[in-house]
Formats: sequence, C-alpha cells, structure tokens
Amino acid sequence: MIIVLRQGSTKEQQILLKAALEEKYNVTVNTWTGVESTVLGLIGDTVHIDEDWISAQEIVEKVRRVQEPYKKANRKFHPDNTVITLPGGQKIGDGSLCIMAGPCSVENEEQINYVAERVKNAGAGFLRGGAFKPRTSPYSFQGLKAEGLDLLKGARKATGLPIVTEIMSAAHIEMFESVDIIQVGARNMQNFDLLKQLGKTDKPILLKRGLANTIEEWIMSAEYIMAGGNDNVILCERGIRTFETATRNTLDLSAVPIVKKLSHLPVIVDPSHATGKAGLVEQMALAAVASGADGLMIEVHNDPRHALSDGAQSLTPDQFDSLTKKVFALKAAYDGIMNGEII
Amino acid sequence: MIIVLRQGSTKEQQILLKAALEEKYNVTVNTWTGVESTVLGLIGDTVHIDEDWISAQEIVEKVRRVQEPYKKANRKFHPDNTVITLPGGQKIGDGSLCIMAGPCSVENEEQINYVAERVKNAGAGFLRGGAFKPRTSPYSFQGLKAEGLDLLKGARKATGLPIVTEIMSAAHIEMFESVDIIQVGARNMQNFDLLKQLGKTDKPILLKRGLANTIEEWIMSAEYIMAGGNDNVILCERGIRTFETATRNTLDLSAVPIVKKLSHLPVIVDPSHATGKAGLVEQMALAAVASGADGLMIEVHNDPRHALSDGAQSLTPDQFDSLTKKVFALKAAYDGIMNGEII
Amino acid sequence: MIIVLRQGSTKEQQILLKAALEEKYNVTVNTWTGVESTVLGLIGDTVHIDEDWISAQEIVEKVRRVQEPYKKANRKFHPDNTVITLPGGQKIGDGSLCIMAGPCSVENEEQINYVAERVKNAGAGFLRGGAFKPRTSPYSFQGLKAEGLDLLKGARKATGLPIVTEIMSAAHIEMFESVDIIQVGARNMQNFDLLKQLGKTDKPILLKRGLANTIEEWIMSAEYIMAGGNDNVILCERGIRTFETATRNTLDLSAVPIVKKLSHLPVIVDPSHATGKAGLVEQMALAAVASGADGLMIEVHNDPRHALSDGAQSLTPDQFDSLTKKVFALKAAYDGIMNGEII
Amino acid sequence: MIIVLRQGSTKEQQILLKAALEEKYNVTVNTWTGVESTVLGLIGDTVHIDEDWISAQEIVEKVRRVQEPYKKANRKFHPDNTVITLPGGQKIGDGSLCIMAGPCSVENEEQINYVAERVKNAGAGFLRGGAFKPRTSPYSFQGLKAEGLDLLKGARKATGLPIVTEIMSAAHIEMFESVDIIQVGARNMQNFDLLKQLGKTDKPILLKRGLANTIEEWIMSAEYIMAGGNDNVILCERGIRTFETATRNTLDLSAVPIVKKLSHLPVIVDPSHATGKAGLVEQMALAAVASGADGLMIEVHNDPRHALSDGAQSLTPDQFDSLTKKVFALKAAYDGIMNGEII
Repeated sequence: MIIVLRQGSTKEQQILLKAALEEKYNVTVNTWTGVESTVLGLIGDTVHIDEDWISAQEIVEKVRRVQEPYKKANRKFHPDNTVITLPGGQKIGDGSLCIMAGPCSVENEEQINYVAERVKNAGAGFLRGGAFKPRTSPYSFQGLKAEGLDLLKGARKATGLPIVTEIMSAAHIEMFESVDIIQVGARNMQNFDLLKQLGKTDKPILLKRGLANTIEEWIMSAEYIMAGGNDNVILCERGIRTFETATRNTLDLSAVPIVKKLSHLPVIVDPSHATGKAGLVEQMALAAVASGADGLMIEVHNDPRHALSDGAQSLTPDQFDSLTKKVFALKAAYDGIMNGEII
Repeated sequence: MIIVLRQGSTKEQQILLKAALEEKYNVTVNTWTGVESTVLGLIGDTVHIDEDWISAQEIVEKVRRVQEPYKKANRKFHPDNTVITLPGGQKIGDGSLCIMAGPCSVENEEQINYVAERVKNAGAGFLRGGAFKPRTSPYSFQGLKAEGLDLLKGARKATGLPIVTEIMSAAHIEMFESVDIIQVGARNMQNFDLLKQLGKTDKPILLKRGLANTIEEWIMSAEYIMAGGNDNVILCERGIRTFETATRNTLDLSAVPIVKKLSHLPVIVDPSHATGKAGLVEQMALAAVASGADGLMIEVHNDPRHALSDGAQSLTPDQFDSLTKKVFALKAAYDGIMNGEII
Repeated sequence: MIIVLRQGSTKEQQILLKAALEEKYNVTVNTWTGVESTVLGLIGDTVHIDEDWISAQEIVEKVRRVQEPYKKANRKFHPDNTVITLPGGQKIGDGSLCIMAGPCSVENEEQINYVAERVKNAGAGFLRGGAFKPRTSPYSFQGLKAEGLDLLKGARKATGLPIVTEIMSAAHIEMFESVDIIQVGARNMQNFDLLKQLGKTDKPILLKRGLANTIEEWIMSAEYIMAGGNDNVILCERGIRTFETATRNTLDLSAVPIVKKLSHLPVIVDPSHATGKAGLVEQMALAAVASGADGLMIEVHNDPRHALSDGAQSLTPDQFDSLTKKVFALKAAYDGIMNGEII
Repeated sequence: MIIVLRQGSTKEQQILLKAALEEKYNVTVNTWTGVESTVLGLIGDTVHIDEDWISAQEIVEKVRRVQEPYKKANRKFHPDNTVITLPGGQKIGDGSLCIMAGPCSVENEEQINYVAERVKNAGAGFLRGGAFKPRTSPYSFQGLKAEGLDLLKGARKATGLPIVTEIMSAAHIEMFESVDIIQVGARNMQNFDLLKQLGKTDKPILLKRGLANTIEEWIMSAEYIMAGGNDNVILCERGIRTFETATRNTLDLSAVPIVKKLSHLPVIVDPSHATGKAGLVEQMALAAVASGADGLMIEVHNDPRHALSDGAQSLTPDQFDSLTKKVFALKAAYDGIMNGEII
C-alpha cells in the first residue's frame, strides 16, 4: 500500500503517522521523499488495513493499494481453481460447461415439472426457478414463496436436477436448507448482513454481480461469505447498468477472464437478465462460452407469453434445445482450440 | 400505457391480445393502426399492470408507460407536501431546513456525546450515527451494533436530539423500536424484504437512493414502504455512480426538483457520502439548499483523523459550525428570494 | 411517432397542434383520448421529424418514436447485408472474418514493414496503423502524420495489404486519398462536420463507437455519412465508458447482434482498445467471433515495451500468431454450428 | 509518479528499466522493495511522461500519477484565478456572475435581435446563439451557418453584447474572427485537431465538458489549447451521461469546486443542456450559483414552442427575467455569506 502525503507536511507529522501505522497495523513503513511529494510504502499484510482511516489523516493526499484487498478469494494465495461439487456429484468449475435453466418464477406444478423435464433433456445440469422474487414494483407478482420451494423440490425429485433459487432474507435460510445452490440476487450483492449469514452455512452460493458494482467489490462480497467459513461461492455476471438502453443491462464479458485471473472461484454468465431480450440470449450465450465462462444461467419458460415475470427474456423449450446444441458444440470446439487439439 | 405491435401481426392476434388485456387488467383498449405499425392504448388504472407480461407477448415490440408506475408516492394523487412530524415536534418537509449531523460510526460514549452536543449547538435538529455499518470489506470495522444504539439513546437523552441510524436487517426492527428515524442505506434500497417489513412499522424511514438507481426506482422503493401502510418516508440523495473518479460518487442535485415535482415526499441531500471529501462538503451543502432540498445530512466527527470509518469525508465540529452558519444564512436568503421578499 | 399531451390541454390546443404537425411534416395525425391523457399518433415518414420541436410545444408531455430515426442504415429498408468490397477484391461483411492488425502508431519504416509482414503471414487481411494520433495529453507523441501515411503506403506496397488509418480533421481528406479505409475514432464519432465531409467521398469509412454513445447514436452517425452519398460504412465496437476500472473501457458485445438486427452494415470489434490490456485481447477476440462479428481490429507491435503509444494493449507478433490460429479455428467451428453442419 | 512492478521481476530487469526511465525522461528513480512487490518512484517533472509507454514494459504491473498531468492549467503553478477580459471590458472569472443567454439556434434577424434585447435588459452580459449546430440526425436543422454569424454580429451591434457561438470545424476559424468568445461543444471536447488550431488564436475559448469525460480529461483539453499559446480558456459544465433518464444529462455541480481547486481557469454552468427541461433550469441555475460558479449559460427563445432546436429546454424572455432576478439576488447573498458579511 502506498500513501502519498500532502505538500507541506512536516517531518514531525510524517514520523508520527509512520509510527501510528506501524503500531496499528503491524506493518513496516518505508518513506520515500520526492521533489514535490513524499510517499510512504507499507510492507506486510495490508488486507486488514482500513483505507478510510488512512485517507482521513491530515497529511494524507491519496492512498493506493498495490495488493488486492481480498485474501480467501484471491488466486495469488490459492492458485488452483475452486471446483464446487454437489452431493449428487455435479461439478461447477472443473472445466466443463454447467447450464442452469428454468423459469424466472415457479408458477405451478405442471409448469415447473414440464420445464424441468425439457431443460434436462436439452442438457441442463441444474434447474433454476424463482420462489421469492425481487420486483421493482410492490404491485407486481412476488413469487409463490414457500410453496414455490416445494414445487422446485418436487421437480428435483422428478428429474434428478439439483435446484438453484434466490434467497431474499437471512430469515429464510432455514427454509432454504434443502435447496442445492442458494442464489444471491444482484440487488442484494451488498446486503452484507445476508452475506454474513450465508457464510455460516455450507451451501454453495451463487453470487450475482450488482448492477453498479465493480469486479473488485463483487469479489469482496464473495470474500464476506468466505470469511464466514463458506468457501463454496460461484460468481455470476449478469450485466451492469450503463447509459445504453437497447439492452436491459450491458453484459460485461471481459469480467470473465478478469475474475479468472484475480480469483480461483468459478464464474458463470446469465445472458437472459443481461440483455433482457430473448432474441439476444443465444448469441450472447455463445459469446460467453468463448469468453471462458464455467457455465450459463438461462431463463426458459413453457409459455413465455404467459409468464408471470420476465417473459420478454425467456426462451421457449424449443429455443433452448437449439441453444444447448450450439453452446455444447461451441464449447467442444473451444476446448479443443485452447488445448491445441484443433488447429 | 401504449403498446407498439410488431410489423406483420395479424388482425386475429391483435383481437386476442386486446381481449386478454381487458380481462386481465380491467382496462379499455383502443387500437390505432398506422402505416408501419399498430399501437394499442390502454385506458384505466395501469399502476398494477406488469410491463414484463406485456413485453413477452409475441406480437409486442415495445411498451411505454404514460402514467408513473407509483400511486401512493405520486404527487398527482396527493398534491400537498408530506410533512413528517416526530413525537417531539420536529418537522421535516415543512419548508424549514432540517439538518441531521453526527459521526459515520458511533465509537464510544464520550465521542457521541461530544459530537451530539456540538452539532446541536451548531443548529442541527437530528443526531445521525451508525451502529450497524455496511462495509465493502469484511475486515473493516462493522459498527458497535446494539451497544452503538444504546450510546445513541444516551446522547439523545443528553441533548434532546432525535436519532437517525441505519438498519441492515429486518431481524433488527425490534431493536430499532426506540430509534426516531430508521435509515435504509443506498446498498439496501432494493432490499425489498426489508422495505416490506419497514412498511409494517410506523417509524419515519429515511430512504437513501441506490448508487445505480433511477429516480423512478427510488420512488418505487418508497412506494414499497407506503404500500405496507407506512407513509412516513423521507428520500435522501447521496450521489450516484458514474465514470467520474474525482469524487466518490456524483451528487445529482437535479434529483431534488424532480422528486418534488413527481412526489409529495420530503427530500434531503447528503453531500458527505456523495463527494467523499470533507473539502467539498460545505460547497455542495450550499448548492443543495439552493436546489430546494428539505434538509441535509452531514458527517461530523470529533477527530476525523482517528475516525473508525469514513474519516476523509467528515467535518470537524468547528468546520460544521462554519457550515451551518452559511447554510442557514443561505436558506434564509433563498426563502426570501423564492417568496418574492428579496429582490 | 407517439405524442403524449399534458393533462389539461384544451380541445382547441389539440386541434392547432394536429394541424401544425400535418402541415409541417406531411403526416396524418390520429388522436386518441384516454382517461388521464390524450395521445397523438403520427402516420407517415417520421425520419425527418424533429423531436425537439415537438417536445417544446406547450401541451406536449412526452414524445416517443415508434420507428427508428434512420433510414439509409436501417435494415428494414435494406434487408440484405452490406458487403464492402475494396478495389483489390477484399471483402468485409460477406460472412468471412476480416482481421485488421498493426501497431497503434506507425513509428518508422522498419517497424511498420516488419509488423505488416508478420500480421499478413498470420492471416490478417488489412494493415492498421496510426499516422495522426488522438492523445489525451498535448505532451504525448502525436503521430508521424504525413510521413506516417507514406510509411503505411510503403508497407502496403511490400505486402499487398490494404491500409486502415485514422483521420482527425476534414482538412486532411485529400491527404487520405490513397488510404484504403479511413477510420473515424471514438472521440470524433459525433464530429458532424467531419462525417459530412467523409460522406462526400467514396472511401470505405470505419466508424468507431463513441465512448458514451448509444447504439442508436452510433447508427445515426453512420447515417450522416450515408446521407452524403457514401454507403460504405463499417461499424466498430471498441468499448464504452462505465464505472468499471478493471478494464480501460467495457466491451459491449451485445452491440454486435443488435447492430446486425437494426442495420445492414458490417460490424467489427476492437478488443485491444476496449480492454486496454494485452492479456485480455485473445479471450475477448474469441468472444467477439462468437458474438457474430464480421471482423476484428487488433493492435500488434514488434516490441510493445518500446511502443510510442498504447503498448500495454499491444500483442507481440508471436502472440498474434497464436490469436489468429485460434480465432480462425473458432470462426470455422462457429460457422459450422450456425449453418447446422456441426452438431 | 509511482510504478508498481510485477512479482517475479529480476534485479537486472529493474536496473534496466530504471536506467531507461532516467535517460528517456530526465528523472531520478528511487527503488523501494516490499515483501510482495517492488515500487519505483520517479522524481522530477513527470508531465511529459507517457504512462502508456511505462505500462507496456514487461515488468510493470501498474502506474500511478502523484502529480496532475497538466501544467499550464494547474493551480499549483498559477495560484491566482485567471480573469478573462474582453476588449469591451467585460470580465469572466473576476468574482462576478457572468450570464450568457440566447437561443439555441439563431433563426432570423427579428428573433435574434428581440432575444438579445430582452436578455440584455434582464441582466445578461453576453449573447449566445448557435450558427453551426451539432445535431444527432443529419435530417435535423443544422443552423444558418455564415448567415447566422452575421445575424449575431448585427445583434451585437444593436445591443453591445459580446457574442458566444459554437465552432464545429477548424476550417471555420477565420470566419469566427470577429466572434467574441468561441465555444467548443461537448462532442468536440476531444477533437484535438480543433483544440490545437484554437490554441494558435488569441480568442477566449469556452470549452464545454464532454458527455463522458472526467474532470481531468476536461482540464487536459484546456491544456491542449493553452499549450498552443492561448491561455484564455473558460470551462463550462453541462452535464454528463449516466443511467438516469429523468434528465437529458446529469448536472455534476461538484465539478465546480473541484475545477476551482485544481485549476485557475473560470468555470461556468449550463443548466439548460444539462437538464434538457425548461422547468428545471431556474432551480439548477440557483444551485450552480451556490456551488461557486463564475457564470451561467442559459437558453432563451422568444417562442420556445416554435424553436428550430432544443425548444424543450429554452426559457421564454419572461421566465428569464424571473431567473436573473433570483440568481443575482442569490449571488449577492452568497457573496455576502462567503465574505462573512452576512451571518
């Protein structure tokens, strides 16, 4: 960590700050004096250092981290990829392409069972479906809640697919006990209380990126879960908010290789929420595979025209059949190319 | 609400969609046929209509709302300003300038009592202070929690200032029973579960704008609280996230007159979090007054250099004395000018 | 085009506005009266209608276009893909993957000839290189200018590769006479004077997307060139500006399928400028291929460590060899998959 | 300037880089070795150093500037405010509030003369009006061009108000010879060729901030003009592009105190373009005064409903009368408060 001091700071002030830093954070501090400014360099473990505290010191102009502010999620300290393995043996992050698919909202037994069957046949390895739904309007459909969870479990029993569903409150953690992967939605990415509680469980957590969050903040939220003792975090890029209005959000595919460089956690891509338009999902799913993603999360609805939420971005089962054929074929080609087998 | 249909939709499809809309939402639907497109116009109460459902219909190209999607927070239906009155008689939204001030975090009894005394003497009407702190890093100071709430109550007893403090979980609502104004932080603006639970209380809620949320979404989150039965919502602009890095966030002062036009709720401004720099707070507080804000929220710390959080943006009590003198003087001039008394 | 009128507008005002619109723009105007608002619908060619003029009418609340505001670049009116063919027979937009590669700046004869030779051998079809360089700082290297153009022509002679280079002023159009493709940089995307002058030439124009421009504005800038009579426009996505700081810009790959839907013009992707990091270029080039792009623009430098500009994002010739092998292999697989030949 | 080296760089590589930096840029380089990284500190004048070149070095991980990358526009080297004085004695930046007002576009003699007369009577010190208009659509009104300039000169003769008008091409500089203040529009803020040509004139240049440009980039564009020898630059904040759609752009008033801290150049605010809505202009003009701005640029049209451009954001002369009364009254109060005369 590097601290640039203000012009005009006195030698005495510098000595006092150096001493305070060394005592407070157990680091060694080097001083380097330039023509127009003096810079302090901190040597040691800086993850626990509070930048705010340093910024507030009278003689401090700027603080710059050299090391990332996270440790457990950091590839530097854990060079090997994290592979999430479910009790049923399904793996995420092992080099294969996992596909999570299903309706935005669970609506009724017939619907979820039909969709589960179809996405399984098309090659999906996981069933997604919302029981608790975050909606911008209090007047929109809010999900079937506990009943929705039961319907998901029924569909799991029928198909064998593990289920992925979103949690909206730490008070529901017990209710999510038999869910296979718990999803934290984009709007709750920095609901730190929820992250802490999830850190105490041993469930795999699918952590969606917040609409206005940097990649570093996203990994820091994973670190919150991991700091609590739960290392099973899957990151999910689902678009960020920009000025562009042609898509619901802007899918940031460069986040995939960046996360893979900075962290050992698996990262998947949700082109349905990112684009908000069914007509773009297949194309962006293909692009996500070629960006190196570990998986895809795709909305599929038996009848998108009558979906209770997000119908505009849902694929029909037939469209999903077409998509999976293409993405698995592209994944095979991609792996061959990256392994040097296809030239 | 206006629905633009795709080119090539058949007469039969149009009749079916019209019938579905009329049945599902109890509205009247007018059809208007242009050269290149057909448009449906919905007449009636459209607040409860789900745009997603309509967008997902096969023959629909675009949906445009003509009316705002909120009702209780909408000035059209409640032309008079909402004035929040606390049991002690303090008012927000009555035309006066309310000032909420105090440290980012409550740190200890001496600190909070000293700051409370100082901000009261400078003219603040409310004491702010964080007991539960949302921090990007799990390794940063997370607040004194329940102990912090007790210290705030002690400072209230000593000074008579009502207290404003942030809640981070619906599980804490009981613990916040004797808090005067409950704050919902920017990162929880769309924590819909929390909003719903707060809607069941009768506490005034200070709702900060999310870092990447539009003004419409912000008002929709107020609507969530109001839909539950709690009309006591105060909006707080605290900066949005943009590409600019010279400030922590970009303070959007045009949000003040826009909110006042669209809604009857009071709106205050937090220049401390918006700018992130103590040196900009006074200037932006003055600008906020001239933008028509109902109040200000300002961070003040007895010793910013040793603050446990956000020290870089905190004012000293002396700086706050200077700020309040200026903002009250400007508010007096501003009121005189707007009333036509000063020319 | 749909015009929502303000509440309280009188019948007389509506009649006057309707008459004014019909006279001014030669359209038919339908009136539709709802419970809370009246809406006008304009039938006819609305491309030439000035939204600003309508917005300014006293009784107008909102104006919404139903049709796109561009015509010549619009796929609706030109369903077939535009294919740009150079005098030497090279094609862009014909379904093949064109690769434009070369250094950010032309530095000297040896450098440009060496890089040209290498990128040609690796499979690039076009040589890119900057002679006039837009730089944020007036103190940075500004390009070799006319001398740089001569060196590019020399490299073309040696390799047969057509040259692509950026123009920074309409005053230089004559000097660019023998350039094969003229590039308009992101910062000049709305330099309308330059666009108009280029519309009078018959040169293919590579139009980069502006850092903060929507896809619609980008196509409108293409329309400027086409309105002048030059239909040879190639669009180039090169990243937009967002809050994310891990990459230089955020590459918006969903722009590719959107542009292909809205317009018949070819669209290529520049992962070098978008990411700003050599280590991300190959991965995002692969993702661009899978997004359906017609081509790639890649920075290659003989010795990135000594490049006079943008070295951090340049590949070495060896890295470029590796990239082209992979992208051509992926393109072949992608084509096979999309054609249904590979399953 | 601080350079963080990659982990694993060898002692020999470090020595070579140090030597290269010292030779190339005539600076002294200090090396500081930490546990996990090595950092170089450059001592001397770093304004001319090319960050790109350094970033591209194999062993470099990050480069951080400690000093601003501009010199002539930097307050550190020119502590006193720049005051622009026109031949007629009008001043900008001397502590008074300058108001530039007039129509978006000059439309005809009667219009411009009438508006000029009215804004003069209301207290404006400068007449603004567009002769060359940057429009997103090639089919929109593009301005009266040379004829517009003549009409502006006529209005100047009639009223004595100096004229401010936008230039769109360096080819027009001669034609702008008798314009008093030449405006560079937001879309041309990084049209570096234009900036260089304007640097060779001695005209005051009003430089609008680009829609997606940081404050640092904006000052760098001023530096371009100043590097050419023309120190008469006035900065104009006019809103930046964000995700918010309630306003045309987001007015960034914190830019005013930041520019004043970083630079000695005057800075004015254009609330008309920033908000795009006439109903918000007065309120944001007042806020701009309280943010410390040196002036305002306001669109006024004799008949906004029939304006050929930007009518929705134009005030009527009567509305402008009201605005100037209020802003001058607020400016007087503001000055009294800041000088300590009003308490």
